[in-house]
Order: sequence, then structure tokens, then C-alpha cells
Amino acid sequence: MRALLVVAHGSRRPESNDEVRRLTDELRAVAGADYQRVECAFLELAEPSIPEGIDCCVAGGASEVVILPYFLSAGRHVVKDIPDIVADSRIQHPAVALRIAPYLGRATALVDSLLELSKN
Amino acid sequence: MRALLVVAHGSRRPESNDEVRRLTDELRAVAGADYQRVECAFLELAEPSIPEGIDCCVAGGASEVVILPYFLSAGRHVVKDIPDIVADSRIQHPAVALRIAPYLGRATALVDSLLELSKN
Repeated sequence: MRALLVVAHGSRRPESNDEVRRLTDELRAVAGADYQRVECAFLELAEPSIPEGIDCCVAGGASEVVILPYFLSAGRHVVKDIPDIVADSRIQHPAVALRIAPYLGRATALVDSLLELSKN
Repeated sequence: MRALLVVAHGSRRPESNDEVRRLTDELRAVAGADYQRVECAFLELAEPSIPEGIDCCVAGGASEVVILPYFLSAGRHVVKDIPDIVADSRIQHPAVALRIAPYLGRATALVDSLLELSKN
């Protein structure tokens, strides 16, 4: 079973964290064919944490978890913090494939999204 | 003449700012029919500033500037700081239409971008 874990920074503003949760709900609604489970987690300032999010997917039966950084640029969080946390989780779950996908800022379709937005 | 101004937060990491500039180049390459000028600007930590970016578009002949917040959530920067700065620019350029588009996090196509990324 494959799971998708959207990882956001987390914010002191509950509304920002709720935006991520809503996006995760939308993703869940369309990702059924690819991922049997779609969850979100936060690097800091909100819950669940990334290890908790991974644990939740594994407890739900995931043999593969794709971790998707919801970040616009390849700062320290994307380059070091998230990989370090995932490396720790790999030790906890040696039988589960934990893969980090490219961060959102790398999506080629962003250009189309921006152009569409500009017309709203 | 219509111009599109992508507004990012700005980072201490030059690479992050360069990512925004590269995205702006890509946007320029596809936006020709809608925008005769596509530029970027930064709220802080990088140049040009938002007022400078607007001035640049106006100096280039823009009668309309669409300001596109390259942000994932509706935090203070999106809700207050950018609108305040744009309001000041409106006073400087009363004959130019300055419009703020929805921020990136509101793009409905983000879900598709994330799903596509997860397969990379």
C-alpha cells in the first residue's frame, strides 16, 4: 500500500495549517488510484510532526511512503532538515520504502498555475 | 500595456531568489499573449523591492500591473504587507491600474502539480 505525505513548514497561524489540511483533503479526493492514503505533516509549529505522519501511514499499512515537501524553494528545510528526519524514520521502519519527492517549487506546472491565477 | 509582477518573500539565500527569477523567465516565455512585460520583485531581503518592481513596469509603459503573490498561505505578508505597499504605489501612479491576484496557495491546479511531482 502506497501513502502520500504532504510536508509543510507549519505556521503559528492555525488558518495556514488548516489550508494545508484542506489541500491534503483535495489531494486525497483525486489521488485514489495512486495513493491509498494521503496525509499531511508539519516540520514545526503544528501537528502531526513528520515522524508522526510517517508512523501514521505505516500503522495504516503503507509499504511505501512518498514524502512531498510543500515548499517553494530549496532552503535548509528542504535540503537538510526533512532528509535528516526521514533518515531517522527509515531506521524506525526498515521494511518501508520512504522516498522524498521534489519540492513544490520544482513543479513545471507552476508556471501555468501562476498564469491562470493572474486572470482571477 | 499589461505587466505581470511576481512578488516573492525574498531570502538570504541567493539561490532561492534566483529560483524566483528563473520562474519569472519561464513565465515571460509563455505569457506573451497576456502580458507584454513580466517581472519579479521581493518583499524583503532581495531586490528589486515591490515598489521598484511596479515602477519598472510603469516606466516600461504598463497601464495595468497584475501583482501575483508567490506565497503558499494567507499570512500577514499576503493579507496586509503587500496590499499596504501596493496602496502606496497607487498614490504614486494614479493613472495605472494595480491589481493584486490571488496568492499561489489558492491555485486550484496545485493539487495536480503535487500529484505529478509525487511521481518524479
